[in-house]
Amino acid sequence: MAEAEARGRRARGGGGAARRAERTAVSVETARYIERNIPNFEVLTEEALEIIEANADTILEEVGVNFVDNPAALERWRNAGADVTGERVRIPRGLARKLCATAPSRIIQRARNPERTVEIGGKSLVLAPVYGPPFVRDMEGGRRYATMDDFRKFVKLGYMSKWLHHSGGTVCEPTDVPVNKRHLDMLHAHMTLSDKPFMGSVTEPSRAQDSVDMCGILFGKDFVQDNTVMTSLINVNSPMTFDDVMMGSLEVYAQNNQACILSPFIVGGAMAPVSVMGTLTQVLAEALAGIAYSQLVRPGAPMIMGAFVTSIDMNSGAPTFGTPEAAHITYGAGQLARRLGLPFRSSGSFNGSKLPDAQAAYETSNSLNVGLLAGVNFMLHACGWLEGGLVSSFEKFVMDADQLGTLHHLARGIEIDENAQAMDAIREVGPGGHYLGCAHTQANFKNAFWRSDLFDYKPFETWSEEGERDTMVLANARVKKMLGDYTQPPLDPAITEALEAFVATRKESMPDAFS
Amino acid sequence: MAEAEARGRRARGGGGAARRAERTAVSVETARYIERNIPNFEVLTEEALEIIEANADTILEEVGVNFVDNPAALERWRNAGADVTGERVRIPRGLARKLCATAPSRIIQRARNPERTVEIGGKSLVLAPVYGPPFVRDMEGGRRYATMDDFRKFVKLGYMSKWLHHSGGTVCEPTDVPVNKRHLDMLHAHMTLSDKPFMGSVTEPSRAQDSVDMCGILFGKDFVQDNTVMTSLINVNSPMTFDDVMMGSLEVYAQNNQACILSPFIVGGAMAPVSVMGTLTQVLAEALAGIAYSQLVRPGAPMIMGAFVTSIDMNSGAPTFGTPEAAHITYGAGQLARRLGLPFRSSGSFNGSKLPDAQAAYETSNSLNVGLLAGVNFMLHACGWLEGGLVSSFEKFVMDADQLGTLHHLARGIEIDENAQAMDAIREVGPGGHYLGCAHTQANFKNAFWRSDLFDYKPFETWSEEGERDTMVLANARVKKMLGDYTQPPLDPAITEALEAFVATRKESMPDAFS
Repeated sequence: MAEAEARGRRARGGGGAARRAERTAVSVETARYIERNIPNFEVLTEEALEIIEANADTILEEVGVNFVDNPAALERWRNAGADVTGERVRIPRGLARKLCATAPSRIIQRARNPERTVEIGGKSLVLAPVYGPPFVRDMEGGRRYATMDDFRKFVKLGYMSKWLHHSGGTVCEPTDVPVNKRHLDMLHAHMTLSDKPFMGSVTEPSRAQDSVDMCGILFGKDFVQDNTVMTSLINVNSPMTFDDVMMGSLEVYAQNNQACILSPFIVGGAMAPVSVMGTLTQVLAEALAGIAYSQLVRPGAPMIMGAFVTSIDMNSGAPTFGTPEAAHITYGAGQLARRLGLPFRSSGSFNGSKLPDAQAAYETSNSLNVGLLAGVNFMLHACGWLEGGLVSSFEKFVMDADQLGTLHHLARGIEIDENAQAMDAIREVGPGGHYLGCAHTQANFKNAFWRSDLFDYKPFETWSEEGERDTMVLANARVKKMLGDYTQPPLDPAITEALEAFVATRKESMPDAFS
Repeated sequence: MAEAEARGRRARGGGGAARRAERTAVSVETARYIERNIPNFEVLTEEALEIIEANADTILEEVGVNFVDNPAALERWRNAGADVTGERVRIPRGLARKLCATAPSRIIQRARNPERTVEIGGKSLVLAPVYGPPFVRDMEGGRRYATMDDFRKFVKLGYMSKWLHHSGGTVCEPTDVPVNKRHLDMLHAHMTLSDKPFMGSVTEPSRAQDSVDMCGILFGKDFVQDNTVMTSLINVNSPMTFDDVMMGSLEVYAQNNQACILSPFIVGGAMAPVSVMGTLTQVLAEALAGIAYSQLVRPGAPMIMGAFVTSIDMNSGAPTFGTPEAAHITYGAGQLARRLGLPFRSSGSFNGSKLPDAQAAYETSNSLNVGLLAGVNFMLHACGWLEGGLVSSFEKFVMDADQLGTLHHLARGIEIDENAQAMDAIREVGPGGHYLGCAHTQANFKNAFWRSDLFDYKPFETWSEEGERDTMVLANARVKKMLGDYTQPPLDPAITEALEAFVATRKESMPDAFS
């Protein structure tokens, strides 16, 4: 099978720490990032795509975008030929697209374990966990504010999850750590508790710089300048507003050759028009402006076109997830990103449910399937998201992480060689026979079909005797099992020590801040 | 919106009863069958398709298929040019495909309410409920043998479900009615408790004849000969075996111009090879043989190419649902059916869970999405299926029926006219504004986004105060509400009386049989 082969292959390295880690390779199995062997699903016609692209240019030229509290950005835009009035930047037709051309179409993000290095772009799909919730939920404890202890548990679960390629970023907000120091503990956790690639801080430019500096310790300073070791999340304040905090962080990352996801953040009907075409037009305009700006900071800065898009329930004003309109937007945005020649990001386990129940699963499954077929290259929130992003759920994390296996198998496509054609088996078995014992089945059954490591496949009577457990109960047990089985991946003690010293020094330099 | 317009349109009629029903039109809203305005997703290359087609012909020619206990069928095949040895029928290359050419590519199935008439074929998708389970489950009563009372409740729920186009057939097995009389009560329920199209009995040729005769009463005898008013399910006893009961029923329906779904019934690895290509080859060979046979019975008999396909958990032998391999097979079978020029059937709410929980929803959602994108024309089991088809679940029925709305909205595709482009809205709102109050939003919000009628979109606090209900609890309340709101659609009293007399007479003519 493709993934197993890939795991055996020698991936390209990730600096000194990576080489050291490789010598003491960990035994936790992780599938290689997905390389699609299936087509993309495309809903927009050529006519529709051209309308959107022309309209996006019209928006940039006539309406423009705001770069807030950021004189340096305005200066860069002015020098590039934009019309700058106050904080409003109007961009001549075609200029933003031209600037985007220097952004690479594929990004290699190095992990300290080189087998976990990922490629973002082309036919690849990299799966990363939930990002941002202030609350956590589990079956026993219910919903509560997230802590650093929760954060570490999620990083460990991510490390142990076979189908998850990326450790993510703010897997939950550790609200018990001062807001100005959280990023240090979070990065430290990703760097030491996992060997998968991760994301940097974006909540202040200085925290982005801390992220770069800590990567310098982990990977070596020169290695960081030559290689992408972080992919960080820059949200647009939609509609069409780029604030100084996010842009300041983007500037730090671009200057240091680190990747950013430039994501319009849109609840359709509130931050964008209440139509798919209108929303796609605004998404494209915002992505063009933001990514073009990154190239003004440093041509060649690695960028991913993002789209956090969902719909709104006009009865209540609540955002709704896993909806058909969000699917249309994601399919369309994928097409637009490919025409721009840029990697594309979507969101995975989107749902609005309060519990990891059927609603959560329907909505999540819709989003996961759309992400695969939309040609997404980086799927954030691929597991663990609950309650519209307010909650990171332990049980949902392992449920979703299990479902991610279906995306791997779907992406394989269909083998058509002689063994796959199975003509000998059909001849051997004949009318009225069965295939369970035939030679072809014996030779192929082990890897032929995906199976869940979580779901109940037992007969009713066994299931009943075992307490009639639903998926949440099974997932709760799996969380405990995975955390119990967790072993920390090895890391050079000198690096461990240097990271701890850096975190301690930085923490001492600042008073605690909780807002 | 397309569906609303369609509902207003005058659909073509369904005989005398239909015209009478129309004059006293019921108020229960039902969406018109889906007409896709999106592409199909195709995973098989031209090369793969040609290999499968050539291999299927090889199977038919070299291995052949069995027609069991059916001398008339063997005689028909012999006359058509097949090589018949014992019960084995070997079909010369190309003959089966040639015979299939007389089957129509589109089928109009009339309902007694002409607004509920459906078209099966081309870009259409007709959604029908769960078929066949001997058990039912609801939240209070748990799992138990199904009764006629349960059956009637499911027919009522189907009638009340906006996104469901079809009343189905054996929505559960009414085990409290003698097995030789069940079909009479079941058909009576579909005919009188709903005005949507339905399926006939296939468990004995005489019961298929009873189905035709009862339709003669409902629609008029001549109308039935000129129009398709039933779509019935003929399973192949895979691999490659056609038994006399199913074929006898098919013969009755073909002779009476009624549609059948010819469905290979395959758990991959048991009834077909443990590979996607091998399974598709066998599916195609079986479909070709069965549908060709229907055309020997009556050229032009309306047929649907089916595929009940799922994978197996090789650890336990349990069938598994909503898996990536089942998706590949469904996508591929859709392509093969289109190349044959025949309508295509898949299965919707497939899952192996014991409860309507997250597992059930993940697996179901996978199957529903695949069905839409595979170009399916008739989706059986679109709602209500649980526990690998052993159970019809009341709560799951309304959960799935609600999700079917997402398929309707996805299938609409993306509008690209000036209103959809929303340039005025983007200009009006500008950077930093919001769209909630703008003119475009006010004019479009009502139909822009799909919303669930079941899911919880409330704020956490409200949800918490209301008892922290999960989807199953919400669905349980919805079942009760729908059954409480149910009103029987009007039917000519003379027809009601004649149907009852027919059922009574037929029941009196037979002793009770329970096996």
